[in-house]
Amino acid sequence: MNDGATVYDAALAAGLPLRADCGGKGTCGACAVKIEAGACLPTPHPSITPDREKKGCRLACRAAVTGDLAVYIPEESTLPACNVDFETIVLTEDDAKRRDALAGLVPSPLVRRFALSLPHPTLEDNLGDMERLARGLKLAGLPGEPTCPLDLMQQLPALLRLSGWRLDVSVADAAQGPEIAAVSAAGGGPPVGLALDLGTTTVVGELVDLCTGACIRRAAAYNRQISCGTDIISRIVAAGSKGGGERLRALALETIERIVERLLAQAGLERGGVTAAAVAGNTTMVHLLLGLDAERIRLEPYIPAANRLPILRAAETGLPIAPSAPVLFAPGIGSYVGGDVLAGVLACGMGRAGDLTLFIDAGTNGEIVLGNREWMMGCACSTGPAFEGIGIACGMMAAPGAVEAVAIGSRDGAPQVTTIAGAPARGLCGSGMIDLMAQLFARGILDRKGLLVSEAKCPRLVERGGHAAYLVREKGEDGAAKDIYLTDVDLKKLLLTKAAIQAAIRTLLAEAGLAAEEIRRVVIAGRLGEAIDASNAIAIGMLPNLPPDRFEYAGNGSLWGANLLLLSREARREIIRLADRITYLDLSTNPGYMNEFIASLFIPHTDAT
Amino acid sequence: MNDGATVYDAALAAGLPLRADCGGKGTCGACAVKIEAGACLPTPHPSITPDREKKGCRLACRAAVTGDLAVYIPEESTLPACNVDFETIVLTEDDAKRRDALAGLVPSPLVRRFALSLPHPTLEDNLGDMERLARGLKLAGLPGEPTCPLDLMQQLPALLRLSGWRLDVSVADAAQGPEIAAVSAAGGGPPVGLALDLGTTTVVGELVDLCTGACIRRAAAYNRQISCGTDIISRIVAAGSKGGGERLRALALETIERIVERLLAQAGLERGGVTAAAVAGNTTMVHLLLGLDAERIRLEPYIPAANRLPILRAAETGLPIAPSAPVLFAPGIGSYVGGDVLAGVLACGMGRAGDLTLFIDAGTNGEIVLGNREWMMGCACSTGPAFEGIGIACGMMAAPGAVEAVAIGSRDGAPQVTTIAGAPARGLCGSGMIDLMAQLFARGILDRKGLLVSEAKCPRLVERGGHAAYLVREKGEDGAAKDIYLTDVDLKKLLLTKAAIQAAIRTLLAEAGLAAEEIRRVVIAGRLGEAIDASNAIAIGMLPNLPPDRFEYAGNGSLWGANLLLLSREARREIIRLADRITYLDLSTNPGYMNEFIASLFIPHTDAT
Repeated sequence: MNDGATVYDAALAAGLPLRADCGGKGTCGACAVKIEAGACLPTPHPSITPDREKKGCRLACRAAVTGDLAVYIPEESTLPACNVDFETIVLTEDDAKRRDALAGLVPSPLVRRFALSLPHPTLEDNLGDMERLARGLKLAGLPGEPTCPLDLMQQLPALLRLSGWRLDVSVADAAQGPEIAAVSAAGGGPPVGLALDLGTTTVVGELVDLCTGACIRRAAAYNRQISCGTDIISRIVAAGSKGGGERLRALALETIERIVERLLAQAGLERGGVTAAAVAGNTTMVHLLLGLDAERIRLEPYIPAANRLPILRAAETGLPIAPSAPVLFAPGIGSYVGGDVLAGVLACGMGRAGDLTLFIDAGTNGEIVLGNREWMMGCACSTGPAFEGIGIACGMMAAPGAVEAVAIGSRDGAPQVTTIAGAPARGLCGSGMIDLMAQLFARGILDRKGLLVSEAKCPRLVERGGHAAYLVREKGEDGAAKDIYLTDVDLKKLLLTKAAIQAAIRTLLAEAGLAAEEIRRVVIAGRLGEAIDASNAIAIGMLPNLPPDRFEYAGNGSLWGANLLLLSREARREIIRLADRITYLDLSTNPGYMNEFIASLFIPHTDAT
Repeated sequence: MNDGATVYDAALAAGLPLRADCGGKGTCGACAVKIEAGACLPTPHPSITPDREKKGCRLACRAAVTGDLAVYIPEESTLPACNVDFETIVLTEDDAKRRDALAGLVPSPLVRRFALSLPHPTLEDNLGDMERLARGLKLAGLPGEPTCPLDLMQQLPALLRLSGWRLDVSVADAAQGPEIAAVSAAGGGPPVGLALDLGTTTVVGELVDLCTGACIRRAAAYNRQISCGTDIISRIVAAGSKGGGERLRALALETIERIVERLLAQAGLERGGVTAAAVAGNTTMVHLLLGLDAERIRLEPYIPAANRLPILRAAETGLPIAPSAPVLFAPGIGSYVGGDVLAGVLACGMGRAGDLTLFIDAGTNGEIVLGNREWMMGCACSTGPAFEGIGIACGMMAAPGAVEAVAIGSRDGAPQVTTIAGAPARGLCGSGMIDLMAQLFARGILDRKGLLVSEAKCPRLVERGGHAAYLVREKGEDGAAKDIYLTDVDLKKLLLTKAAIQAAIRTLLAEAGLAAEEIRRVVIAGRLGEAIDASNAIAIGMLPNLPPDRFEYAGNGSLWGANLLLLSREARREIIRLADRITYLDLSTNPGYMNEFIASLFIPHTDAT
C-alpha cells in the first residue's frame, strides 16, 4: 500500500467485507478491528474503551499501515452484504394481479419485438441490408423510420445471411422515434426487459416478459457500495476522493451484474436476450452508476448534474444486457426526491386520483409525497438504513427467515413471531422492528424516550455485546440459528428513523395547510411496506392516526414503477408529467422541520393528542 | 513475419509506401521490387522479363520471405501518396460566390451554437445542471427538448462552475430532435464544421464557418488505403482478409486525421472546436470507414450493408473532432452510386430544375446521373484512378505544379502548358491528360486506337522506362523538376477510362429513349472537372458533342454538397428526397453497356457521326 494507507484502504483494495457506515471518515466506529500482530498506533474513538484498546482494538479507517499486520475483522464489523450473499426474493404480487393491472393499459412496451422473414435480395430488388430491414419493419406495422446503432449495422450483413433472412428485431419506442435495440436470428426466447430498483442499501432486479408483463424472475442483493458508506452523504464523499467515482461506479455495476447473472442463469437466458431496461433509483444512486458528479447533491443549494436523463444505450451505462438495449431512467425532481419516488408515485396511481393521498417510501432515505391529480408536494428526509437491516445488530433484509411481524402477549412470555416464508428465524427486518418497538412500548418494556426499562423485570431483557437488549429468539428456540435480539443502540437508530418520517409528514401537512384527517389514502411503499402493521406504526407515531382502511401497502413501488415504464407508453408519458408537477420542499432549509423532528423523538410524540 | 508472409506483407507491416494496385493479388505487377541480398524464388508475371528476373526483380506480393532479405523499392513501385505527402489545395470557388449561393438558403446549420449565461442555482432556483442548461437553451430560442450524450453530462457540472455559468453550447439539428453536440466555456472561436469528400484515391477536407458558410481552410491527401489496392474491388478483397477490415479502417482514419490535423494547425483550432461533420463518399469508402462489411458490394446482386446511415457521433466513427459532434453521411442509392454522387447532384441543383441535365462525376469510379426535377436515373462505371494521377508514369493530383492544360501548336514544337498556380511543372493531372490525348490525336501523333504513331516523326516522341512516350517537358525545361511525359501504357489506361464514361452516358440516354442533343446542361464534377476543356473531351469522345455553353464545371461537387449538408436544413431534406427518387441502373448486368464500351475504345468512337 501507499504511504498513509490505512487498514480500511487495504481491506477495500483486497475486497474484504469491512463495514464503514460513515465511508471511512472515522466517525461511526463500525470498522473496529483487532490487530493480532504488528505495531499499530491507537485510534481514539468513543466506542473504543481503554480495555478494548489494550486488546488491540483499532478503527480500521484511522489505523495507519506502517509494516506487516495481522488483522482480525469481528463479525459486527463485517458487511452483511457478504454474509447474506444474495437471495431470490419471494414474489409478493402474484402474476395474475400484475396482469390485471396491465389490462387497464395499452400494451406498448419500451421495446417491441418483430419477427421478420425478409425476401432475399436480387438484382431487381437490390436494397441495402439496412433498408431491407427497415422495409420489413414497415410492412410489419412499425410506424416511422427506425434508426440503427452502428454496432448492430456492423453485425447485420452476416446475421441476415446466417439466419436465412429470418430475424427477430427489437425496436425501442424512444421519444425521438423508433430505434433498433437488438437483432438476432429468429426463434429466440420471449422479449425480455430488466426492471431495476437501484436502492442505497438494496438493489432488486426483475426479468419481465415484455409481451405479457409477467415477472419471469426476481432477485435482490445488498448494494456493494455499502463498503464505501451506508448513507448517501458518505457515498458522495467517497466518490469525491481520488478514484472514488470509478470505484463506486464499479461497485454498483458489480451488484447489478451479480443480480442479472443470477436471474439469467435461473431463467436460462443470455445477456443479449434482455433488450430493454428501466431503472428507478434515487438521484445519488443514478449519478454514481453513470459516473455523474454527485458532489453538489450534498452541498447547498443541493444541485444534481441531471434530474432527467435521455434514454441511454446499455453499453454506455455498463448494464450487462444487450449492448444497444435502451435504458430508461425514471426522472427525479431534485437531489433528494429521485426517480425511485416518482416510479412509486406512478405505480400507486395517485396522480390520476382526486382523493388526497399520502405516499411514503421509507428506504435508506424517506421520501414523502402528498397530493392528488390537481397538485403534489414532495420532500425527503434522512432515515438511515436501519429498516433495511443495516447497522442493526440482528438486522437483515426482507428475505426468507427474516422476522417480519412480532406480537408480545405478556411481559414475561416469549413473543410470537412470523418469519418470511415461515423459515427458522435468522434476523429482523423493518416491519418486525416496528412491531417490536410498538409492542415493547405497549408492554411498558420501552419508555417514551425509546429506552429499555430495566425496572420492567422482563425475563427477555438481557445484555448482548455490552448493551441492554430484548431477546426475540434465543439460539435454537423454534430453530433459530443464533440469538436474535434488539439492543438499546438499535432502538436509538429506529427512533431517529421514525422521527424523521413523522416530522416530514407533519411538515408537509403544515405547508399544505391540511390536517392529517383529510388524508383519504396512505400508500406505504419501499421495503418497509411489505409487511408493516399500520396499527403498530401508528402506535409509535410514525404514521398518522387514521382508520385502518385508509392504509395500503404498495410493496416495492419503485420496482413496480420500473415495470410500468418497461411495459406502457402511457406510463412513460405520465412520469414526465409527474416530474413537471411535483413541487419539491427542501426540509433541510425548512424552519419547521427541525422542531417537528425533535418533538418526534418521543413515542409517539411530545404532542400526545 | 509469420510463415507464408511475403515482401508485400512485410512492407505493409512496416508502413512502407509500396504500390499494389490490385491489392496484393499478383495480377497488376505494380509492386515489382529488386532483391539486392538474400534468397527469394522467382515470381512469374508478364511484366517481369527473364532479364529483369535475373537482376533480382520480383513481385513483392508473391515473393515469400524465408530469410533475411535486402529489398530495393524502385520509384515506379512507390506510392505517390507518400511522395507527394499532402498539399493545401488552392480554393477554386471563392468565398464571395459561396456566400451568394448560401444567401438563397435559410441558414440552418447541422449544429447551432448558443452562447448562454445561466443564473447561478439557489435554494429557490434549484434545477439540476442539465435542466438549467435546457431552460437556458429554450430561453435562447431552441425549439424542443434537447437530449444530451452521457459524456457531456459527466463534464457539465465542473464546466458550468469553472466557466462562471457562461457556456457555448452546440446543438445538433437531428431528424429526431435537438441533441447537444458540444459544450465549452464561453468565448471560443467561431462554430466550425468539417466537410469531407472521402474519395477512393483522394480525400479532401474543409473547415467551414457554420455561421457564414465561409471556407476557413481546405486540404487534401491521397487516401492511404491505396496501399491495399487502387480500385474499390481490390479494397473490398483486402478488407475481407484476416484483420483487413481493421487495417483499411485505420488507413482511412489516418488519412483523415492527417488532413484534419493540418487544417486545425493552420486555422489555430482544437479538435473539440469542430462540432459537426458531413461526409460525402462512395458506398465502399463509407463502409470501410465505418467497419461495415463491404464484401457483398462486389458480389452479385451487389448489396451494401446500408445506403442510408443515421447521424452518428464522431467518437463512434473515429473522426478526430469533438467526440459528440454529429456526423452526417450523404445517403447513397446503391453499391456503386453513393453519397458522393448524391452530394454532387444536390450541389448542382438539377433536382430543382426542369431542364434535362447530365451530371458526370469522374473520380476513380465514374458516376453519371441523367434527369431533371421530374425523374432521374443514375449509373456507375469503373474508370480507374488514372485521371487522379494514379498508375500514370508522371501522374499527380490537381495540386500546384500539375499540368492542367496543354495545347500542341505544331507537331514539332514544344507543347504549351498551363500549370496549377503557375508553378514549375511537376506532373500531369486529369484535365492535362485529356488535353494531351485530344491534341496528340488532332496532330496525328495518336491514332484512333489510342496508340502513339512512331511514323509521325515527332521529335517529342521518346522512350521512357521501356515504353514509347510523348515528352511534355524535359527536366529543366521551364524549370521542370524532372522529365514529364505520357507513355503508351498511360494512354491505354486513359482510353479505358474515357470509354467507360462515354459508354455509360450513351447507355443511360438509350435507356431513357433520349438523344444527346436533348441534354440542356452538362455538369462535370469531380477532380476532373476542375480545369477540363470540354472541346478536347468532346474530341476524344468522352463527352457528348454539344454546344460549349451547355457545359458547366461544378468543381468538387461532393465537397460542396457536404458543405450544403453542413449549412442547410433544406439541403439535408432534399438529399433524402433525391435518394428516394433516383432510379439505379446497374451497368454490369446491362446488355447494351458492353457493346457501347467496346465501340468507345476508339477515338472518338466507332460511330464517327
